[in-house]
Amino acid sequence: MTDCDLGGESKQVLRHVVLFKFKDGTSSQQIRGIENAFCALPGKINTISDFEWGTDVSVENLQQGFTHCFVLTFRNEAGREIYLPHPAHREFGQMLGPHLDKVLVIDYWTR
Amino acid sequence: MTDCDLGGESKQVLRHVVLFKFKDGTSSQQIRGIENAFCALPGKINTISDFEWGTDVSVENLQQGFTHCFVLTFRNEAGREIYLPHPAHREFGQMLGPHLDKVLVIDYWTR
Repeated sequence: MTDCDLGGESKQVLRHVVLFKFKDGTSSQQIRGIENAFCALPGKINTISDFEWGTDVSVENLQQGFTHCFVLTFRNEAGREIYLPHPAHREFGQMLGPHLDKVLVIDYWTR
Repeated sequence: MTDCDLGGESKQVLRHVVLFKFKDGTSSQQIRGIENAFCALPGKINTISDFEWGTDVSVENLQQGFTHCFVLTFRNEAGREIYLPHPAHREFGQMLGPHLDKVLVIDYWTR
């Protein structure tokens, strides 16, 4: 823990932040399908303890082309270890892959 | 709203996700100073309704060099409009700037 433990949560959780930029030419229908498929994962992988997402509305032009942000929460590393190789996650990756231009993933423990 | 409104929150909030990569040679003491300065902003800018952060612990090697993730929450766009040009935020930016290699900012409304 650092000097700046300002979090309101008494228990640390593991955040998993995922950013996507889709390839040019990906249709809005295809993007909607990917959004829905990602949103279905918490119903299939029970170690995802929280899930939220949205599309970029920033005003500083520092999004580096990324348009989508998904934040998954795990209670511990074991939850992430179940998620990453889970068949439902792999199936999602196969659906996503052909449309993906850039991806960024950063995980952190909340403080 | 989309088909996949799985959020547990009844009210949408505006998330402001900020990623940093520091320049090579930035000392751990300098990084700690920047972390502490960012963490002090919620005490100075009262439109920041929630604040959390952490350092990368991802295992997929997709972090693109970013090491720090800060997530600020605003209740509305007006809250962000207060934050961005706020003197305390500008002062932080001046402290941060010389040490910054890369920055990424993406905002989204929770769903």
